[in-house]
Amino acid sequence: MKIISFEGIEGVGKSTQIKMLDEHLKSKGLSTEILREPGSTVTGEKIRDILLNSSEDLSSETELLLMFSARAQLIKEKIINSSNDFILFDRFFDASSAYQGYGRGLSLKLINNLIEFTKCPIPDITFLLDISVDEGFKRKTNDTKDRIESSGNTFFENVRQGYLDLSKNNNRIKVLDAQKPINDLHQEIVTITNQYI
Amino acid sequence: MKIISFEGIEGVGKSTQIKMLDEHLKSKGLSTEILREPGSTVTGEKIRDILLNSSEDLSSETELLLMFSARAQLIKEKIINSSNDFILFDRFFDASSAYQGYGRGLSLKLINNLIEFTKCPIPDITFLLDISVDEGFKRKTNDTKDRIESSGNTFFENVRQGYLDLSKNNNRIKVLDAQKPINDLHQEIVTITNQYI
Repeated sequence: MKIISFEGIEGVGKSTQIKMLDEHLKSKGLSTEILREPGSTVTGEKIRDILLNSSEDLSSETELLLMFSARAQLIKEKIINSSNDFILFDRFFDASSAYQGYGRGLSLKLINNLIEFTKCPIPDITFLLDISVDEGFKRKTNDTKDRIESSGNTFFENVRQGYLDLSKNNNRIKVLDAQKPINDLHQEIVTITNQYI
Repeated sequence: MKIISFEGIEGVGKSTQIKMLDEHLKSKGLSTEILREPGSTVTGEKIRDILLNSSEDLSSETELLLMFSARAQLIKEKIINSSNDFILFDRFFDASSAYQGYGRGLSLKLINNLIEFTKCPIPDITFLLDISVDEGFKRKTNDTKDRIESSGNTFFENVRQGYLDLSKNNNRIKVLDAQKPINDLHQEIVTITNQYI
């Protein structure tokens, strides 16, 4: 089994690219599953609802721990015994480092401890779709923002920079220019992915 | 503000003793709040529901992280700015060490990191109501057990032993014989508590 994760701030086009890669892999006769975080299990979806729609002002610590609670359950149910050829993640643990670590300023050391504690498998490839925060917001077309999307520009600048920092220390993270035309990006993603088939 | 926590396995009579101490403190004109974990905030009660009533087989890691998610929110909302003279906890972070650490075998080091990360205040007094597992089960009168209560005897033996181990390293933890008559126990608790008023 191979794991590919897609990372990036809002509006970079992750969902589109995941769907296109998924179709490409299926057309080659490979079995795939797309997972979204938090979610993809009964417990994870309940946690997702708390995270995105809470009427309370959640503490940053609560937010981080809820993300990893959902992740631990996802790994148990969907990863450990998976028989799929490919699992495609619409964000995975790098998002905790970027959003809660770099974005909210929580301890990256503790986040790394939690990555280990929850037995996160390391993706074979991580595609980081990079775009400026302004451009990302412009492309985000839905009218209503969820709780995390409402966090403001400085927060997302820190998240973007966090992702770029992570890519410097991890060869598996491939930084792609998300402003390129959709089909060009897809071709880049396919070329890299084909090396793992 | 003083914090008193009550710990112990099922059936030791924590709720009864907390109510009696609460009345004693109120009778002295002191303001008090009783908090239960997980819970006591909107988010915490949602997390409690997942923990106690999940239809999925929750991973031990998920269980631990959900407990600390609820705890982080509780500390933010109910402890940091509390104006009460006394906060009485119906279990607090020692329960994570006992149940998830000693009981489920999760890393005590990570649990200690999480206690620090969520900025848990250390209780002034912790009353550990100790009883044998068999005796505790006998006294537990409700017919239906929740998910954690259904974990079996060996689990609860480990939890009990965990609590006793913790008491050896923490002077604040006072071990009381929960088989004593209710009023005798209450008197012991009052005598110790009065030293903190």
